[in-house]
Amino acid sequence: MDEVRVIEIKKSIFEDNDRDADRLRGELKKKGVFLLNLMSSPGSGKTTTLIKTINALKDRLNIAVMEADIDSDVDAKKILEGTGVPSIQLHTGGMCHLDAEMTRQGLDNLDLENVDLAILENVGNLVCPAEFDTGSSKNCMILSVPEGHDKPLKYPLMFSICDLVLVNKIDVMPYFDFDLDLCGKYVHMRNPKAQVIPICAKTGEGIERFTTWLEDQVKDWKES
Amino acid sequence: MDEVRVIEIKKSIFEDNDRDADRLRGELKKKGVFLLNLMSSPGSGKTTTLIKTINALKDRLNIAVMEADIDSDVDAKKILEGTGVPSIQLHTGGMCHLDAEMTRQGLDNLDLENVDLAILENVGNLVCPAEFDTGSSKNCMILSVPEGHDKPLKYPLMFSICDLVLVNKIDVMPYFDFDLDLCGKYVHMRNPKAQVIPICAKTGEGIERFTTWLEDQVKDWKES
Repeated sequence: MDEVRVIEIKKSIFEDNDRDADRLRGELKKKGVFLLNLMSSPGSGKTTTLIKTINALKDRLNIAVMEADIDSDVDAKKILEGTGVPSIQLHTGGMCHLDAEMTRQGLDNLDLENVDLAILENVGNLVCPAEFDTGSSKNCMILSVPEGHDKPLKYPLMFSICDLVLVNKIDVMPYFDFDLDLCGKYVHMRNPKAQVIPICAKTGEGIERFTTWLEDQVKDWKES
Repeated sequence: MDEVRVIEIKKSIFEDNDRDADRLRGELKKKGVFLLNLMSSPGSGKTTTLIKTINALKDRLNIAVMEADIDSDVDAKKILEGTGVPSIQLHTGGMCHLDAEMTRQGLDNLDLENVDLAILENVGNLVCPAEFDTGSSKNCMILSVPEGHDKPLKYPLMFSICDLVLVNKIDVMPYFDFDLDLCGKYVHMRNPKAQVIPICAKTGEGIERFTTWLEDQVKDWKES
């Protein structure tokens, strides 16, 4: 198995991230690349969810993945080994988020020719990544059952900017005090338009609903 | 039950946080107040751990608690209702961490007369809080089993600055791929001096080891 490439991301010099993010979105649109920004707390199951998702979609879509972490390359290795799709590791050098320029540095290291779907697995953090538009086409976040259903109350911005909330690890629901209905209510309090899909990345439960959503988004993006 | 007080924290104006943190530590030392900075990811069980800990110690130590969150006051309410000890909620206004000056704003709203142990429950975040010395006497973090044993690899700074790592939710160990020995090895890779205590805040397992550690620290602090 090939070693994954590790890219050391430099701090952005752009002051106006929103404008830069719009510019990046426009460039990606022209290239026909849909960029999904996937966010969550540490350990909520982003990488496992991605492996299941990519394996379900890779025959129909050309996919490339950027794994952002402060250190280590375990996630990019897992993606490459678990799916075979091109995957690079972005090191943020201690930084707690990615902005549009940092995302661009990652994209510059991917071969985007013929890529339909580029996925950015953001730094595990429910606070800072929500503050920076990465230039993504859509934002998705994972809330895992062990974290508790009250998280939309405590981390409002993250839930307000996400188009989709995946509630992961529903297989362990019996062992935690997690109220799925209440969670949905809290999510919609922050963002009435957000969709909520319960999944179990480990067993694959609910992944088809997610891949259907994602495929529809990519199609709409290309046609819009 | 009394309503908890919510304090809106203002952004710091101090440029040299390390110096300010040392100053705060000195002031607290003079007052005989030990400050514990408790950090973790969202949903790892900080508040539940604190309730169990405070109830075990409140007859022997005078305790006061600051609960930091971006929004909501659910944690301060839980502490007050679950323990009866004075607890205030700090709102960080979107900020992802507390520094020494922000901690001081919280402490200024507590009656520290006769307090032995002040506890700061930091914002749920494995990245940014590690970068800012709060003026605490000791740093403690919680890693919960569902987050995975690889977190010290991905969030090196957090593990390197903590004197104690509590591994929480060990009751659900059978349902997750979590290797406690490997976790300890990764923690010590980042910080050879860190202690690791496995706990289950829900059932109380291991809490006595934690309260013994904490009581010893408070005693040593007062006598040093």
